[in-house]
Amino acid sequence: MKSVAIIGLGIMGGSLGYSIKEAGLFDTIKGCDNNIEHQVRALELGIIDEGVSFLEAKKCDLIVIATPVDTISKILPSLQGVNESQTIVDLGSTKYELVKNTPQSIRKNFVAAHPMCGTEKHGPEAAIKDLYKNKIVVLCDVEHSGEHQLKTVQNLFNAIGSKIVYMDAREHDKHAAFISHLPHAISFALANSVLAQEDPKSILALAAGGFKDMSRVAKSSSSMWTDIFKQNREFTLKSIESYKKELNDLERAIEKEDWEEVSSIIERANRLESIL
Amino acid sequence: MKSVAIIGLGIMGGSLGYSIKEAGLFDTIKGCDNNIEHQVRALELGIIDEGVSFLEAKKCDLIVIATPVDTISKILPSLQGVNESQTIVDLGSTKYELVKNTPQSIRKNFVAAHPMCGTEKHGPEAAIKDLYKNKIVVLCDVEHSGEHQLKTVQNLFNAIGSKIVYMDAREHDKHAAFISHLPHAISFALANSVLAQEDPKSILALAAGGFKDMSRVAKSSSSMWTDIFKQNREFTLKSIESYKKELNDLERAIEKEDWEEVSSIIERANRLESIL
Repeated sequence: MKSVAIIGLGIMGGSLGYSIKEAGLFDTIKGCDNNIEHQVRALELGIIDEGVSFLEAKKCDLIVIATPVDTISKILPSLQGVNESQTIVDLGSTKYELVKNTPQSIRKNFVAAHPMCGTEKHGPEAAIKDLYKNKIVVLCDVEHSGEHQLKTVQNLFNAIGSKIVYMDAREHDKHAAFISHLPHAISFALANSVLAQEDPKSILALAAGGFKDMSRVAKSSSSMWTDIFKQNREFTLKSIESYKKELNDLERAIEKEDWEEVSSIIERANRLESIL
Repeated sequence: MKSVAIIGLGIMGGSLGYSIKEAGLFDTIKGCDNNIEHQVRALELGIIDEGVSFLEAKKCDLIVIATPVDTISKILPSLQGVNESQTIVDLGSTKYELVKNTPQSIRKNFVAAHPMCGTEKHGPEAAIKDLYKNKIVVLCDVEHSGEHQLKTVQNLFNAIGSKIVYMDAREHDKHAAFISHLPHAISFALANSVLAQEDPKSILALAAGGFKDMSRVAKSSSSMWTDIFKQNREFTLKSIESYKKELNDLERAIEKEDWEEVSSIIERANRLESIL
């Protein structure tokens, strides 16, 4: 690998910059961001060595797209014209719509990746050294990527300590809905239900670990998450539907004062302990 | 304070044992538990110095009830007959039904407390040194407690580093529903919705921080939480109703592909950042 550019210098792209530097994979890390302040800050923080234009980024051997998912789907067509040895990888949270809409002329250049890591924070300041270490990265529909490109991306994630998992893009989106997109929807609703109360400050003054853990991701970026719900609309809605059924069962049991049923619902949930 | 007994040697009672010992408040810490294995384990762990019977515990100057809430309401009537200098304090998560049903003859002996701390784990093994340190403890309806008893309990929580907050019992239960009982209901339903899928193990293999944080409390004790939903049924149902309204709003916006509305719902949730 000779040259790399990271497009989008938020938490995912920024953290990747730190990891690539740490692994010593490239002499120079180039980066660009629509938000010029982010680009400047990423330079100051040492995440990238050089701020470049999109056209400059397009010339690199490895092009990482680390923007919100809707922007990824807009950037991919603009990357048409890269040569056959260049590699494009994205870090988006949804995969099916992206791979489906990738222009055929660059499909072999493209590897669709979803690193299962991140925090509720955003921007280059939120970037974390070692964010990718020991974390799962899902690579989707790799049979449509070029051999060289797949190898390049495998080398990248191996070098920064991630564990690679392979999956069909639709299967990924279905799983990601339950494991990530539904929990975010739940957390947004939880935060809003407390904030809608008469005196949210008095309520929140009592918050302990449980509430803090469950509401943490409600602080996540609105533009990033609107995009995710948009790109994974079908499975997000299915997961919400399935979840509401479970919540309704618990609600009904409490309503009916059927404490045996409440207890058995909780015991069912407790089985999580043996898996996670 | 001369003698203390902790009734119920799980995470709350066990951790209190550690804290009382650390603070050097009593020469001997007595403890009892219906589950004799827990009582033996608490002795082995050094949480208590002496395992005693309920009748022995009833003679102590300070009697701490650290059982699930439904059991607290059964224990309180059995404590009738204590003398006017003895103090009874509970550590239950619900307060209104408890204070309402406390026998009048021991109402002055009783101080109703809810320490806002704990984990999803249970039993004496789950007890943590410093669990109470810098954590909020809500004392409810203290105007009905005796002056000496209130002072005893204030001294106890001050000595172990907790921050005392005073509240009306119904107000407490309303707040606790949103900050703790609703989040648990949500987490049970989230765990069950994933476990109900075809291949939960493949889904859970992808779990990152967000899902882990949100499903952690789904591992909580079934008997403890059935009791809480039972004792705080009214406010738990109200909080679930209010929460479902918020979730439905988000679901409907995603369904209608109204991305501006989705974005504004997330931005509303983001306001949590400024308070918590």
